[in-house]
Amino acid sequence: MTSPEDQLIRWFAARNEQPATNIPINIGDDMAEVSIAKGQTALVTIDMMLEGVHFQLDKASLLQIGYKAVAVSLSDCAAMATIPLAVVIAVGLPQNFDQQQLKQLHTGIKKAVEYFNCALVGGDITRWRGGKALVICSAMLSKPAKKPPVKRSGAKPRDVICVTGKLGGSRLGKHLDFTPRVNEALQITKIASVNSMIDISDGLSTDLIRICDAGRVGAVIESNRIPLSEIAKQNSNPVESALNDGEDFELLFTLSQKEYDRLSKYWQSKTPITCIGKITKGDKVRIKYPDGRVQSLTAGGYDHFKTQASQ
Amino acid sequence: MTSPEDQLIRWFAARNEQPATNIPINIGDDMAEVSIAKGQTALVTIDMMLEGVHFQLDKASLLQIGYKAVAVSLSDCAAMATIPLAVVIAVGLPQNFDQQQLKQLHTGIKKAVEYFNCALVGGDITRWRGGKALVICSAMLSKPAKKPPVKRSGAKPRDVICVTGKLGGSRLGKHLDFTPRVNEALQITKIASVNSMIDISDGLSTDLIRICDAGRVGAVIESNRIPLSEIAKQNSNPVESALNDGEDFELLFTLSQKEYDRLSKYWQSKTPITCIGKITKGDKVRIKYPDGRVQSLTAGGYDHFKTQASQ
Repeated sequence: MTSPEDQLIRWFAARNEQPATNIPINIGDDMAEVSIAKGQTALVTIDMMLEGVHFQLDKASLLQIGYKAVAVSLSDCAAMATIPLAVVIAVGLPQNFDQQQLKQLHTGIKKAVEYFNCALVGGDITRWRGGKALVICSAMLSKPAKKPPVKRSGAKPRDVICVTGKLGGSRLGKHLDFTPRVNEALQITKIASVNSMIDISDGLSTDLIRICDAGRVGAVIESNRIPLSEIAKQNSNPVESALNDGEDFELLFTLSQKEYDRLSKYWQSKTPITCIGKITKGDKVRIKYPDGRVQSLTAGGYDHFKTQASQ
Repeated sequence: MTSPEDQLIRWFAARNEQPATNIPINIGDDMAEVSIAKGQTALVTIDMMLEGVHFQLDKASLLQIGYKAVAVSLSDCAAMATIPLAVVIAVGLPQNFDQQQLKQLHTGIKKAVEYFNCALVGGDITRWRGGKALVICSAMLSKPAKKPPVKRSGAKPRDVICVTGKLGGSRLGKHLDFTPRVNEALQITKIASVNSMIDISDGLSTDLIRICDAGRVGAVIESNRIPLSEIAKQNSNPVESALNDGEDFELLFTLSQKEYDRLSKYWQSKTPITCIGKITKGDKVRIKYPDGRVQSLTAGGYDHFKTQASQ
């Protein structure tokens, strides 16, 4: 059920023998939490974007690419309801990439940074020898809004499963100018006590399985409750698109029925929150269709190791 | 005098309008310092290594490459006399790179991490479509050993200029298994009050000019006092090699004569510290040869924008 990429990350995590007191949240969540001083922690995440994988130079402007590089890390901050503080960016430039292009990239980076009131505090500029392709890597520092930050692993049986916004088809455009749900995450966790949260980067199917794996629980979602984007609706199989397209960068979270009721009562943002199902005991992650069919959900989102699953 | 790459970084820095209270040390130093809570700060740096530029897959093992990726960031921690806490790593993998190779890379990463008692707390694994080349990016979190951390900018006229270890020829081998001077930096700053410090990543010439630019001072170094590595000595021009080869990852620092005397008295490490010259008023950075010649030092180290200097 777990994706090959997640299996690999688990392999790395199992080889970590750090004292837990210094690292309250280690490998395996959207961000890691590191103790800086008594009672004070910072969170950190890193994301790499490759030309041809995460963006195409003929389909996205450099401004959009710079923006996206920071926005994916901001989405990790949102996933744990933390406050973005500062970002550092490293770029690997193709040989013919000039300073003017680099300044366009910088404009996009600044757009994301300023929108969320955090700071671009450093970077590293390197250049390939002999062509190659643009690579951009961002590392983000944040601090918890509440202590402790919301983890992936806290889902409990009978929790309501919610998503923000609408899902599917993001790779046709939205993935380049989405708004990371930083403010929504802070508002949600201010109104209600959330048991688990993740951002949908690799598709609802993959990320729901991550929530369930981390919490050692199962889930049932209902296909006709999944909020579909307009682009997904044009697809021949809109639900499939919402489950597996990835790069929605919406929030997926779980909370008790009581907390969900409170959230519904006080939620005033224009970003919709939709209940799509329930957490269950056991480890089965399933989807129910209107015709009564119940299927096991498989991690159908993007996986950098899927083609090597047999290794 | 300033390198094109440094001019570009200055261009970015000038476009930063963050409130200085949240970011005590911003773009332009080896690490940035970010306020986490009242009186508590964390430092962060990012470094990207590209196949064919920073390493060759036929000349370095994956263990060495993984080690170097972390070690360059640890060297940034050393440059500011900070204590490494945690690192996150992102890798972009060539299409035929398998999990076994990734685990070798991980072994090298862990070697560096464990040697300096910090933690690998997260990462991002992505894969190029259609070949491309290995790219590895590390972001390091540290905390100040003393407050404030040592900056590049504090050099004062009459300061003694010192380096650790021996310089030159590192790219012929040492750049793959150097020991970041983290412990030396902590010891140096425990014994003496250091006014400015940097790690020699791009060559003594380039990094001394950075110290002088940041502190708005000049310098005179003496060619025959520069400690030469055995490999540099085999070069037809050993001093040139020590000035410009880069990737020495030794410390370059300045301190008053009085503090230097104290450091010399109490220094017990097997890593040598050598005085190579003095900081001066003005902005001239010069080198004196035994025959009496005095030349201006130019940033002769590696620069990713040197070929585009005219833009």
